[in-house]
Amino acid sequence: MSRDIKALIAQMTLEEKAGMCSGKDFWRLKGVERLGIPSIMVTDGPHGLRKQREGGDHLGLMDSVPATCFPSAAGLATSWNRELVQEVGVALGEECQAEDVAVLLGPGANIKRSPLCGRNFEYFSEDPYLSTEMAANHIQGVQSQGVGTSLKHFAVNNQEHRRMSVDAVVDERTLREIYLASFEGAVKQSQPWTVMCSYNQVNGTYASENKTLLTDILKDEWGLEGFVVSDWGAVNERAEGLEAGLELEMPSSGGIGDSKIVEAVKSGKLSEEVLDRAVERLLTIIFKAVDHKKENATYDAEAHHALARKVAAESMVLLKNENGILPLAPGKQVAVIGEFAQKPRFQGGGSSHIVPTKLDTPLEELSKLAGEGSVQYAQGYRIEQDEADVQLVEEAKKAAAAAEVAVIFAGLPDRYESEGYDRQHLQLPPAHIELIEAVAAVQPNTVVVLSNGAPVEMPWLGSAKAVLEAYLGGQAGGGAIADLLYGKANPSGKLAETFPQQLSDNPSYLFFPGEGDRVEYREGIFVGYRYYDTKNVKPLFPFGYGLSYTTFEYTGLTLSSSSIKDTDTLEVRVSVKNTGSMAGKETVQIYVKDDESSVIRPAKELKGFAKVELQPREEKTVTITLDKRAFAYYNVELKDWHVESGTFTILAGSSSADIALTDKVEVVSAQPLPVRVHRNSLIGDLLHHPGLTDEEREHVHTFLKNYSMPGLFDNESMGEMGEAMMKYLPLRAVSAFSGSAEGDAKLAELIENLNKKPMKP
Amino acid sequence: MSRDIKALIAQMTLEEKAGMCSGKDFWRLKGVERLGIPSIMVTDGPHGLRKQREGGDHLGLMDSVPATCFPSAAGLATSWNRELVQEVGVALGEECQAEDVAVLLGPGANIKRSPLCGRNFEYFSEDPYLSTEMAANHIQGVQSQGVGTSLKHFAVNNQEHRRMSVDAVVDERTLREIYLASFEGAVKQSQPWTVMCSYNQVNGTYASENKTLLTDILKDEWGLEGFVVSDWGAVNERAEGLEAGLELEMPSSGGIGDSKIVEAVKSGKLSEEVLDRAVERLLTIIFKAVDHKKENATYDAEAHHALARKVAAESMVLLKNENGILPLAPGKQVAVIGEFAQKPRFQGGGSSHIVPTKLDTPLEELSKLAGEGSVQYAQGYRIEQDEADVQLVEEAKKAAAAAEVAVIFAGLPDRYESEGYDRQHLQLPPAHIELIEAVAAVQPNTVVVLSNGAPVEMPWLGSAKAVLEAYLGGQAGGGAIADLLYGKANPSGKLAETFPQQLSDNPSYLFFPGEGDRVEYREGIFVGYRYYDTKNVKPLFPFGYGLSYTTFEYTGLTLSSSSIKDTDTLEVRVSVKNTGSMAGKETVQIYVKDDESSVIRPAKELKGFAKVELQPREEKTVTITLDKRAFAYYNVELKDWHVESGTFTILAGSSSADIALTDKVEVVSAQPLPVRVHRNSLIGDLLHHPGLTDEEREHVHTFLKNYSMPGLFDNESMGEMGEAMMKYLPLRAVSAFSGSAEGDAKLAELIENLNKKPMKP
Repeated sequence: MSRDIKALIAQMTLEEKAGMCSGKDFWRLKGVERLGIPSIMVTDGPHGLRKQREGGDHLGLMDSVPATCFPSAAGLATSWNRELVQEVGVALGEECQAEDVAVLLGPGANIKRSPLCGRNFEYFSEDPYLSTEMAANHIQGVQSQGVGTSLKHFAVNNQEHRRMSVDAVVDERTLREIYLASFEGAVKQSQPWTVMCSYNQVNGTYASENKTLLTDILKDEWGLEGFVVSDWGAVNERAEGLEAGLELEMPSSGGIGDSKIVEAVKSGKLSEEVLDRAVERLLTIIFKAVDHKKENATYDAEAHHALARKVAAESMVLLKNENGILPLAPGKQVAVIGEFAQKPRFQGGGSSHIVPTKLDTPLEELSKLAGEGSVQYAQGYRIEQDEADVQLVEEAKKAAAAAEVAVIFAGLPDRYESEGYDRQHLQLPPAHIELIEAVAAVQPNTVVVLSNGAPVEMPWLGSAKAVLEAYLGGQAGGGAIADLLYGKANPSGKLAETFPQQLSDNPSYLFFPGEGDRVEYREGIFVGYRYYDTKNVKPLFPFGYGLSYTTFEYTGLTLSSSSIKDTDTLEVRVSVKNTGSMAGKETVQIYVKDDESSVIRPAKELKGFAKVELQPREEKTVTITLDKRAFAYYNVELKDWHVESGTFTILAGSSSADIALTDKVEVVSAQPLPVRVHRNSLIGDLLHHPGLTDEEREHVHTFLKNYSMPGLFDNESMGEMGEAMMKYLPLRAVSAFSGSAEGDAKLAELIENLNKKPMKP
Repeated sequence: MSRDIKALIAQMTLEEKAGMCSGKDFWRLKGVERLGIPSIMVTDGPHGLRKQREGGDHLGLMDSVPATCFPSAAGLATSWNRELVQEVGVALGEECQAEDVAVLLGPGANIKRSPLCGRNFEYFSEDPYLSTEMAANHIQGVQSQGVGTSLKHFAVNNQEHRRMSVDAVVDERTLREIYLASFEGAVKQSQPWTVMCSYNQVNGTYASENKTLLTDILKDEWGLEGFVVSDWGAVNERAEGLEAGLELEMPSSGGIGDSKIVEAVKSGKLSEEVLDRAVERLLTIIFKAVDHKKENATYDAEAHHALARKVAAESMVLLKNENGILPLAPGKQVAVIGEFAQKPRFQGGGSSHIVPTKLDTPLEELSKLAGEGSVQYAQGYRIEQDEADVQLVEEAKKAAAAAEVAVIFAGLPDRYESEGYDRQHLQLPPAHIELIEAVAAVQPNTVVVLSNGAPVEMPWLGSAKAVLEAYLGGQAGGGAIADLLYGKANPSGKLAETFPQQLSDNPSYLFFPGEGDRVEYREGIFVGYRYYDTKNVKPLFPFGYGLSYTTFEYTGLTLSSSSIKDTDTLEVRVSVKNTGSMAGKETVQIYVKDDESSVIRPAKELKGFAKVELQPREEKTVTITLDKRAFAYYNVELKDWHVESGTFTILAGSSSADIALTDKVEVVSAQPLPVRVHRNSLIGDLLHHPGLTDEEREHVHTFLKNYSMPGLFDNESMGEMGEAMMKYLPLRAVSAFSGSAEGDAKLAELIENLNKKPMKP
């Protein structure tokens, strides 16, 4: 329906307009009845709907309307499956329509800087490209149902520790290439109806009042059409926030924020135009929700549960499978051990906590597939207890010894990871570790299934024949685990984050979570595999890694051209063949490496991927298109992305560590950087600058010959040192060393001449 | 002789005064004949005198008056022997007197940030405490002879790459704790007559015109009485440099710099007082030199050579000695392999390059100790050639196979490390590696002697039974190697720097040597073992490590008190016993660890050491005194050193990785940090602040009770997350969540009350 929103705003009082800029209560926006502006509802939950029951306490996280709980983002991202993530989004959108929810508060696109971050289970990846692709498809799915999303938490909210006060200090290039890039693609590709600003400060300014982030970048540069909502309680100074581009304060501040806006407009501190523009963005989305509202919508809970099972099976990663112990043959005697088999950990704590429509337990699902009488259960540990229980361990050993295979369900209990606080270490509870070691000692065929939202250390890895990383698999995770263990589904998940050998290997380790209210992102762009690869630190399991029950062969990497301009695109083709005997899916990953660069760059960066399904012996060719951004770094002088002309390596592989094929392409920049000469320009830079004309080069040589210290530039005996001295000598030092006042004057002349037109490389 | 320098200055013309502020030529200061101000000479060389012959070209590094070449600083520091370093200083001072040199340009106290730095062989350590102790004793030795020193290169000159233009970007705390600390103790303890400013920029300003460094810190805070001299050619803008505290420009700029000073004074840009103070500092040192000049001084070259041999034996580190293969018994058949045995690499390239008075070769010295007919020599490789020579390797294998032991001399040729440029990798020449592997394959008893100025990677380590790191041992290094290999001397050197497994393990790796003219010290205080220990990265050989032919036992660590104020000192006593059968020296190292800190601190830091000589079965107790600085970090808010009250661990050990004994001490700060409360103060911080009175705490509780959202602070079901939310909630969010306008007003009142007196912890 077409409306004249500007005309509507013109009819609103200052107070009404200010009122639109904060919530009516915890979950609803205000309406203006006299003008026919309705009050819409938003709710928590990127991987499921957390709509609180009416009358429930606001933060009472446990009491919400039942909804389908899909795998949380950490697992979802391991699917590397854009279409599947869209399907999840569609289902979520349907549930929102059924529950009269206009905007779902998600997805979260924060980068996993440290595996300790308590909220990592809600985020996708350590890699901005993968993260933004997942977020974009999630958004497209939800919004295809006429329901909005809220891409969160913008930005640089990578820890829970002191999240409402901490200042994330990040250099501009890192901000652009890593932390903002993870949001950028999602905004540009999918236009989320809203973006949620984070609690923290970014380089000294609260995200909620950071004009650079909320207006200059998000709206003006990326083109966000919707509005920005505060994370719940993230507003610091309301009027400053509005000015910076924060349209909606949530939850209700009981009128405090509104009054501050009114005051600011009245005192002239805040332009009413700013307020009007904010209200325009708000009304646009409100009416969009109204227009897309499906009356009497319902959804098929069983179908969604089935989808959740399918999704979960792609959202788990087979980390180890010695001697092909998996899949298990039905009928084999299996000891299922660990309380998680009965009381699964399937979601994380905090605002994303859902009341599921139903819940599969791994024990039951395994029993169904194993066949009558094949499964014996032992509790192994108590979830609520960190220390091992001797008797439970003994029982588990007995069950394991009596079976042919032991499947241990271990992982992190709820209290280990949650919104609100970070982990202190990456260890499993001692009870789980002891159990694994004790069981493996009596049963060599031990399989470990992990339920956790983020990496754990695995000092016990040598004791397990197989390990399945099940992440937090949602309400049908139990069924998906059974499907994978029994080969009803073939594992195809690949890690969206590096599993380190030890916590201290993580790049942020020394400076995480900061000092007081300041955390410095000193590792810069070296986040995740960018660090492990470049620093040559061997991870436990690398980014992009995941096993299958079948095998794949890569051949025929071809590039559409061996040389392109950075304004062109490059098509990368690679063929993948299923060389095993089971149907399976493989994710082809394309990384790009700048072979030589004047700026610091990682060993390689993910720039494309494609997931293909292949029957045994089937082969498919995938095509991945790379554009300028695949080769560019963010140049802080230009304030733009820039490609340094030169050769790049294209790497195609099955993980960041398993590169099957490589090829080279030359990329020529359409935007060479001009160079200005000054007194401290180095002779070596100048003489080797490709932009120097022959005549200019001659001028430099003449100057050096006439005014440098005798012997300085022709002393053979000095060898490497002489050469180095020359190369690194600033122009100003040439005449200083020779003590020539005339040279000093000539230098000024030389510089002036060289700068007449800035040299192009 | 007492002189009225101020009166003298009053008689000088402006031009004469400006003239004093730059060199007369490459090596001499100007004098003023009419006023009886003589021209004094300075020369290069921290570990030997490089006085160029008259008429030689200025930079012709090869043509200088013969002088004793002592081990370069990298080796010297491994002695951890303060007295020995002083002895070297005394000898250097004597040689200066004999050669009429007033000031010796050294020592260098730059920190080894990266093992790649081409000039590391001239520097002492990666640890500021060890570095400053070595520098202080060097200075005391030289200056005891009436000759000045020039502590260099001040400051943050930790790479040769683009050294004349690069800007070293370092945070203030790191600057203070690491890079300046390495100079601070030397200045305070030993008052070098001069300090040499470095080429590079520090945080955006050339060291040569950095007032914070040259005046505020060096002179006002540390109390330097002498003058600052520029590194040769380091002056950027002369008048700005003088204003900043750079008294002397070197070398002569042919009057350019002088004119700029005169102009600046005349135009009023520069106060003549500044110039007068500079000249006063210059004249004070010039006359000090004159007054201490010993006429017709000579030195005993043979005695200095003998000293050089003694020193060299303590300046080498026995890294490996499997099955006690060393020391060698005289008479054993030894194959001495490698051209370095005949043409030793005994010093580094660049300004410190010396013409030695004589030169021991390892081959000759070994032959003397081995006994008649016991040594066979094979060249093994050509020094000037990187690639292996098949025939030389074959000859070496033959010689090795025919002998009982092979001793291979390997290391870095001159072109690998020098002033002026940095290394690109840490590898030995391929020819050396191939040789070691080939020889070890035929002779299991293979000993490798390394000659190099900085760490190398040792992929071949498993092939060698023993490794002696000889560093650059000076002119008597050959004799020292022989002494050590045959047990005439017992190795007692300990590494003053970490040897990494691979270059990429180094903390600066990702950001070294920077982008263009900017290098960021992102690893901060985590330099050397501070990084390896804290990040849990296993080095090849740790800081402080070195083997002996005997063994030592540590017992009886006692502290003078279990609790001190930070204004007190703590005496640490530990007993060391020689439990082997050979006399030897052991360096007891004392590290301090802050058990818990609100600021980021390394796992441990070296804060004291003592070297003791022990006969077999002899035991000695060493006492090391720790003061405030041993427990303090540099607080950038206070702009001062600060101790955070709490428990500290005192660790006594034989290396940074081999800690024998620990104890605890409580240190109480005499200067607690006051806390101010603001709208964004966190509730957790406030409620747990020890400085809160009971009444104040009650006020906070009342506020929370009255104005926070119902249920927010008493929701049991929220568990850890609830607690975390409360702890990390800013005061401003309390009333915002509850939407209480009254609460917002009450908050302002609460804050005002709490701030009436800033809380003391």
